[in-house]
Amino acid sequence: MKAAVYGGPGDIRIEERDDPEVEAPTDAVVRITHTAICGSDLWFYRGEEEHEVGAPVGHEPMGIVEAVGEDVRHVRPGDRVFAPFSISCGECEFCRKGLHTSCLSGGFWGPHGEAGAQAEKLRVPQANGTLVRVPDRYADDEDALEALLPLTDVMATGHHAAVSAGVEAGDTTVVVGDGAVGLCGVLASRRLGAERIVAVGHHEDRLELAREFGATDVVSARGDEGVEAVRGLTDGGANRVLECVGAASALETAARVVRPGGNIGYVGVPHVDSGDFVEQLFFKNASFTGGPATVRAYAEELMADVLQGTLDPSPIFTETVDLDGVPAGYRAMDEREAVKVMVKVDG
Amino acid sequence: MKAAVYGGPGDIRIEERDDPEVEAPTDAVVRITHTAICGSDLWFYRGEEEHEVGAPVGHEPMGIVEAVGEDVRHVRPGDRVFAPFSISCGECEFCRKGLHTSCLSGGFWGPHGEAGAQAEKLRVPQANGTLVRVPDRYADDEDALEALLPLTDVMATGHHAAVSAGVEAGDTTVVVGDGAVGLCGVLASRRLGAERIVAVGHHEDRLELAREFGATDVVSARGDEGVEAVRGLTDGGANRVLECVGAASALETAARVVRPGGNIGYVGVPHVDSGDFVEQLFFKNASFTGGPATVRAYAEELMADVLQGTLDPSPIFTETVDLDGVPAGYRAMDEREAVKVMVKVDG
Repeated sequence: MKAAVYGGPGDIRIEERDDPEVEAPTDAVVRITHTAICGSDLWFYRGEEEHEVGAPVGHEPMGIVEAVGEDVRHVRPGDRVFAPFSISCGECEFCRKGLHTSCLSGGFWGPHGEAGAQAEKLRVPQANGTLVRVPDRYADDEDALEALLPLTDVMATGHHAAVSAGVEAGDTTVVVGDGAVGLCGVLASRRLGAERIVAVGHHEDRLELAREFGATDVVSARGDEGVEAVRGLTDGGANRVLECVGAASALETAARVVRPGGNIGYVGVPHVDSGDFVEQLFFKNASFTGGPATVRAYAEELMADVLQGTLDPSPIFTETVDLDGVPAGYRAMDEREAVKVMVKVDG
Repeated sequence: MKAAVYGGPGDIRIEERDDPEVEAPTDAVVRITHTAICGSDLWFYRGEEEHEVGAPVGHEPMGIVEAVGEDVRHVRPGDRVFAPFSISCGECEFCRKGLHTSCLSGGFWGPHGEAGAQAEKLRVPQANGTLVRVPDRYADDEDALEALLPLTDVMATGHHAAVSAGVEAGDTTVVVGDGAVGLCGVLASRRLGAERIVAVGHHEDRLELAREFGATDVVSARGDEGVEAVRGLTDGGANRVLECVGAASALETAARVVRPGGNIGYVGVPHVDSGDFVEQLFFKNASFTGGPATVRAYAEELMADVLQGTLDPSPIFTETVDLDGVPAGYRAMDEREAVKVMVKVDG
């Protein structure tokens, strides 16, 4: 099969690899039909995070089940499925708590696992817990599938930020970051009933999409000026802040715009040089909650809304490529020409 | 009057100052009878935090109201009162939310204010909101007063750590730090119903007191060994962790012993060099909540328990001095000869 692999900073290649097979009784093999390139892939693409050279890439798989091990009961060959960026058994202490990213038998695709989702096929460990089955009536509905694909990561991650920040009906939220996760954070805030949604970013086109997704205000100024603008719009700070970047500057912005006693939900892998922002949190008694999104816990709930037509994150895909186009897709995202790139593998 | 003032690192002096007077209609003047020296005072005493030379010190006042301004209704001259380490109006947005440390008319004693509690008298701004009145029947009950004195700070701070960590009946909690706040965190955890309480510290005598206060296990090993010991006792980590120090090493320990999906309540002013611990929090989806204790919000509830005899933090006072003994009290705490020093001003 063909698979995208990491060749070093700035270098993604399509290589020939052995087809994956069912190895454990809990495995499934999925033929990938749709996948995507994630903003978090840019950390290693830019050499800012380690990734083994030669390792496969991609963590947002959707496709058709081809084969299953003897202990797999939840899906059958032919089923349309997608999977989160993390593997989970569905049965351990943490999965039972909805904390699938801490699954005792779990793990992540790509650098920490053996397989990547930007490939023709993928071996899925813990298939009972990991795979989400799309109802048959939507299994070949291309519009539905493209709206479901972001549930593998970014839509669920934006939702996790909103849930972690405690967003409820009537709230004022500030979403820091205008990447795909930030945009999904806007969608999630609106879905949870936020009345006022301030999107903070640096790209006019993305902030325009934020408005379409429900942002009532947008702020594009940087640094102190941006913080003051948000404070002005929120009478001194918001009770709910979604930190959707992970960079030190975004964490600091979040700490500065959160209202005393408010909550920061954070979902970007934190890249922090100093803990200065902790002191800002401290004096405000603001809580700081988040982590990798528990995608699997949210999948059914979000899928229901997508399939009934009340949630559609698909406009974040501003470009579509085939598997051979994955290297160009990384470049487009790195150069911010695309918000997020969809990959149609058998396109 | 006599007042303790800061003369520079390692230097606390007793100096003569003008008696304070009612300046604003919302002021009261309190004749201090009891106060204390706080572990947080050691930060500036050791030169690790700025404090204006010549500024008064102390933030844990208890005494008798001497005079009140014309807008003061909640207390009268002759009342026995105590006050938190922060000043609060009781009426603004944040006070109404129980977030008195963010009071719009508030502030802190000592370096940030004009007055310190280690003195014969103290002008109390926002007296209606700030002062807590002790019921008359206990107003001269020395045992009750000594058990109430820690409610000005450390007992309420330990409680804030426990509340921020979400401690509930049946929980397993880990308390990082065996200073007065950590010890009060143990008391607070027990009071909130924790079944298993692991106290982590470095001083055998304090850990012994932790056992008396309700710790079911104590860990005195440092670094990796201490973390492994706590993990061993808690089957991999606790859902509730109280970080009661504020030092970088304590924050890191807290992040390492919290169970995935658990909560860290932190109350030590964070002294952090790097944000490395944030990454540990992240992958566990652990929440990080805390700040300066909202003492005023907890005062009535904790006072009720003290006065009915079910809560007694007074054993944290291992030494008592008079006002002239305050400099020696700082030395005793700095050299860890005393857990916490009580000051009887008119003793």
